Amino acid sequence: MRILFLGDVVGRSGRDAVVAGLPGLKSALKADLVVVNGENASHGFGLAPDMARAILAAGADVITLGNHAWDRKEIIPFLEQEPRVIRPANFPPGTPGRGAAVVEVPGNRRALVVNVMGRLFMDALDDPFRAVQAEIQKHRLGAGGTIQASLVDVHAEASSEKSAFGHSFDGLVSLVVGTHTHTPTADHQVLPGGTAYMTDAGMCGDYDSVIGMQKGGAALRFWRKMPGERLAPAEGPATLCGVWVETDDATGLATRIEPVRQGGRLSQALPVV
Amino acid sequence: MRILFLGDVVGRSGRDAVVAGLPGLKSALKADLVVVNGENASHGFGLAPDMARAILAAGADVITLGNHAWDRKEIIPFLEQEPRVIRPANFPPGTPGRGAAVVEVPGNRRALVVNVMGRLFMDALDDPFRAVQAEIQKHRLGAGGTIQASLVDVHAEASSEKSAFGHSFDGLVSLVVGTHTHTPTADHQVLPGGTAYMTDAGMCGDYDSVIGMQKGGAALRFWRKMPGERLAPAEGPATLCGVWVETDDATGLATRIEPVRQGGRLSQALPVV
Amino acid sequence: MRILFLGDVVGRSGRDAVVAGLPGLKSALKADLVVVNGENASHGFGLAPDMARAILAAGADVITLGNHAWDRKEIIPFLEQEPRVIRPANFPPGTPGRGAAVVEVPGNRRALVVNVMGRLFMDALDDPFRAVQAEIQKHRLGAGGTIQASLVDVHAEASSEKSAFGHSFDGLVSLVVGTHTHTPTADHQVLPGGTAYMTDAGMCGDYDSVIGMQKGGAALRFWRKMPGERLAPAEGPATLCGVWVETDDATGLATRIEPVRQGGRLSQALPVV
Amino acid sequence: MRILFLGDVVGRSGRDAVVAGLPGLKSALKADLVVVNGENASHGFGLAPDMARAILAAGADVITLGNHAWDRKEIIPFLEQEPRVIRPANFPPGTPGRGAAVVEVPGNRRALVVNVMGRLFMDALDDPFRAVQAEIQKHRLGAGGTIQASLVDVHAEASSEKSAFGHSFDGLVSLVVGTHTHTPTADHQVLPGGTAYMTDAGMCGDYDSVIGMQKGGAALRFWRKMPGERLAPAEGPATLCGVWVETDDATGLATRIEPVRQGGRLSQALPVV
Ligand SMILES: [Fe+2]
Ligand SMILES: [Fe+2]
Ligand SMILES: [Fe+2]
Ligand SMILES: [Fe+2]
Ligand SMILES: [Fe+2]
Ligand SMILES: [Fe+2]
Ligand SMILES: [Fe+2]
Ligand SMILES: [Fe+2]
Repeated sequence: MRILFLGDVVGRSGRDAVVAGLPGLKSALKADLVVVNGENASHGFGLAPDMARAILAAGADVITLGNHAWDRKEIIPFLEQEPRVIRPANFPPGTPGRGAAVVEVPGNRRALVVNVMGRLFMDALDDPFRAVQAEIQKHRLGAGGTIQASLVDVHAEASSEKSAFGHSFDGLVSLVVGTHTHTPTADHQVLPGGTAYMTDAGMCGDYDSVIGMQKGGAALRFWRKMPGERLAPAEGPATLCGVWVETDDATGLATRIEPVRQGGRLSQALPVV
Repeated sequence: MRILFLGDVVGRSGRDAVVAGLPGLKSALKADLVVVNGENASHGFGLAPDMARAILAAGADVITLGNHAWDRKEIIPFLEQEPRVIRPANFPPGTPGRGAAVVEVPGNRRALVVNVMGRLFMDALDDPFRAVQAEIQKHRLGAGGTIQASLVDVHAEASSEKSAFGHSFDGLVSLVVGTHTHTPTADHQVLPGGTAYMTDAGMCGDYDSVIGMQKGGAALRFWRKMPGERLAPAEGPATLCGVWVETDDATGLATRIEPVRQGGRLSQALPVV
Repeated sequence: MRILFLGDVVGRSGRDAVVAGLPGLKSALKADLVVVNGENASHGFGLAPDMARAILAAGADVITLGNHAWDRKEIIPFLEQEPRVIRPANFPPGTPGRGAAVVEVPGNRRALVVNVMGRLFMDALDDPFRAVQAEIQKHRLGAGGTIQASLVDVHAEASSEKSAFGHSFDGLVSLVVGTHTHTPTADHQVLPGGTAYMTDAGMCGDYDSVIGMQKGGAALRFWRKMPGERLAPAEGPATLCGVWVETDDATGLATRIEPVRQGGRLSQALPVV
Repeated sequence: MRILFLGDVVGRSGRDAVVAGLPGLKSALKADLVVVNGENASHGFGLAPDMARAILAAGADVITLGNHAWDRKEIIPFLEQEPRVIRPANFPPGTPGRGAAVVEVPGNRRALVVNVMGRLFMDALDDPFRAVQAEIQKHRLGAGGTIQASLVDVHAEASSEKSAFGHSFDGLVSLVVGTHTHTPTADHQVLPGGTAYMTDAGMCGDYDSVIGMQKGGAALRFWRKMPGERLAPAEGPATLCGVWVETDDATGLATRIEPVRQGGRLSQALPVV
């Protein structure tokens, strides 16, 4: 199976790039499954239902979220009715929405997508490691199993926590990919047990910015230490950032992982498929 | 000027790779100035003087440090006598050692290296932004100036803080490069004002690990929440990770930035010089 | 039922004061149940089994712990065999020891003691609120119930989290008392629903110190930002700090709460019983 | 000199109690100098100029602030023109307002009030210890000096940092008193060097609440981990909380420290003057 994952979509710049670019990218990369983190799509804060619909219409099979999941209140009823948009699984019981999705993939296959939030330097949710363990134990991975691929979006700050995720589930899922820092990493690899891993997918947004927000105001906050104007997303052309993974349907494990960076200011990277 | 910067050297694996690989790398990349972050060289924690000497002997002009600066007590007298090894400049007045170094570069040129530590999700040191500002104001950058290039190693956790550094000093220094996450990023770029920027250089260490430490014990800490055995560095072959920058001596600003990844598990990247 | 709770015992000063003073205090206060937080008894870090035995011998029915629970490795086998010494209940499944104890109280009564750790500004354990809920749901409080009193030691940094605990369990337990800041608070009250509450019991230790540790070295850490000498407990006379609560066995709820401060530098407070 | 300090005034409940109660309290306690922390006066967040004027009119000589200093934008021009309202001194250079005030006290005396913010578990401002040191070095304390008393409001989360403040300035100022936790402590004492110390003055607000905010919504946040309704201050009767100190004008050091708690739910405490 070929999987395309795109990191945090930030504001109009990111949304426009995803809506305009995802169909072509999906086709060029022959992606069977597309997952997009959408937690910053709405002016940098949250995901309005209309934007979720636009990203799904552009080719995403699943949208994941993160610490900004609840910034737009309209998301709450939307999450209840749209199983393709998920929020971190390790919110406490009773939280609206779901933390995982199983989607049909062409070729009579199925894939599991789990979203989870780290805890180091972040809010203290439930244990994300046990949350992922609980989700994957509901399924059997590989040929003859209930799913042929599985992907975990670890929305987390600390590289150590994300890396611990990769190794903890190495051999048990197809891909562990981080989000949240809005910075693509260059440490993509297939871990020894067969799980593809990348510490952060990066954002889909304007990289002439402070993690997607207009650089002047965002940088000033570190100098002045007073709340300033509300931050607004940078509006230059976005780089679509993410990762592309090829898996073996027989095992559900990864055979190849490549970075994806298209458009905007960053160095370009596209797997040769 | 051509600058080679290598990120946090972790344990024996990282040290051995630097000592064995740096001479060839320096020569292949025609590097005029080599800076290496050495805060994890000693079994993952700190930098013993002997290891500093070995890294300098292998071709480093300056060694920078970070939050692990003081893990080895012997470093304190060593810092007082060895100006080429610097610790973050934003420790309070009275702290042993120096936060910046000016070094001679072939061709009758000079370069400033500043080391500073971020504060988001880290210990509350003095303001790192004003610390860098104070250091660069002592010099004039470019042809006819007191220095022809300048480099800031921002040892920090948060991508937002590092990015705010890049933009705050865009046009004022040659390179802002981050360290500390032990994960190379793929967002290297020359910012609009002419400063080369990369959120994190990555570590020089074994990437089959949790940020350089043996993966079993390090991952277990996230599951068990009890202190376990003392962490030890992973011992597989290291990837040397860093960044290569070309600057214009007339302005001191960057004309090109490329990632460097050599050896070990990560995808390889070497600028064509 | 009359309950005496003493906060974090720090080092020799605290231990000596508890061993010497607890028998008399228990008798003067006609305490039916005595609980002591012992996480700092061993030179400020952890609780060695011998010290636990000495505190139990002096009259404690239960000893609670906190973030320093594991500082002394010998505690691990000891916790497995000694049900009267408990560690925070919200460590993940598989953690050695227990998070709650039920003890016999004179007059054919029983009491539940739960220990839990907060998460704000502390390590991310499991949800402490649900952990307490799970423990108290195993019991029925009051006359004819399985327990006639219940006490929660909330080992936490933030006053907001401790207060949220008090209100969340108001009417459901006899006493919610905080520990960990090593500073006694003066906000003891019986909440509207009948639960006695005090944000922090304070420590049993020398108050001419920085939260129990020798003041010179401990204060210097805030000035120098370098690791200094290992901190050692202050050795002056201790103030025993805690809280005394009277409950109605019919309901298990509190009728009275009074602070206890005996010896040492602090203003003295002893309920008139 | 007799000093009365009242902790964080929270919302209408706290404001009303201060405006109604401070004149009588000041008179009963024969206070020569009154300082009130007002950072939560405006519906829990910030201090509107009208409320500052009301608190000054009720008898406060100086109003201090904290992390909520900037919640009401109108405070910025107000701080520039009203030297009796101060914000933490360790904001970076260029921050509006002042971090210290010198006020005239009856009997031809003068007193220095400094406000500073801690950094442990809080935003990374400049070093608060050096900030206080810099302020007090501008003055000479005692008979024949430029000031006869001095007071530091340490607005901080961690008891260790506040205690380190007390000891660091023991013998150099009249009073170190903490604010911010909204919980009065019972550890008031005159330190060995002659400085009065209390870890937290507590809030002036309704103590049937979560640190001053309505308890239902505030407690729910710990259970649900989603942003809920905006928090609003609790509206029951307030307890005025603070501390009273007597100093020797010859030395500027303290001879006596007593807690003050008047009205509302907490145990009452008033020094006999
Ligand atoms: Fe994001
Ligand atoms: Fe995020
Ligand atoms: Fe490092
Ligand atoms: Fe580091
Ligand atoms: Fe403790
Ligand atoms: Fe503790
Ligand atoms: Fe406050
Ligand atoms: Fe505050």
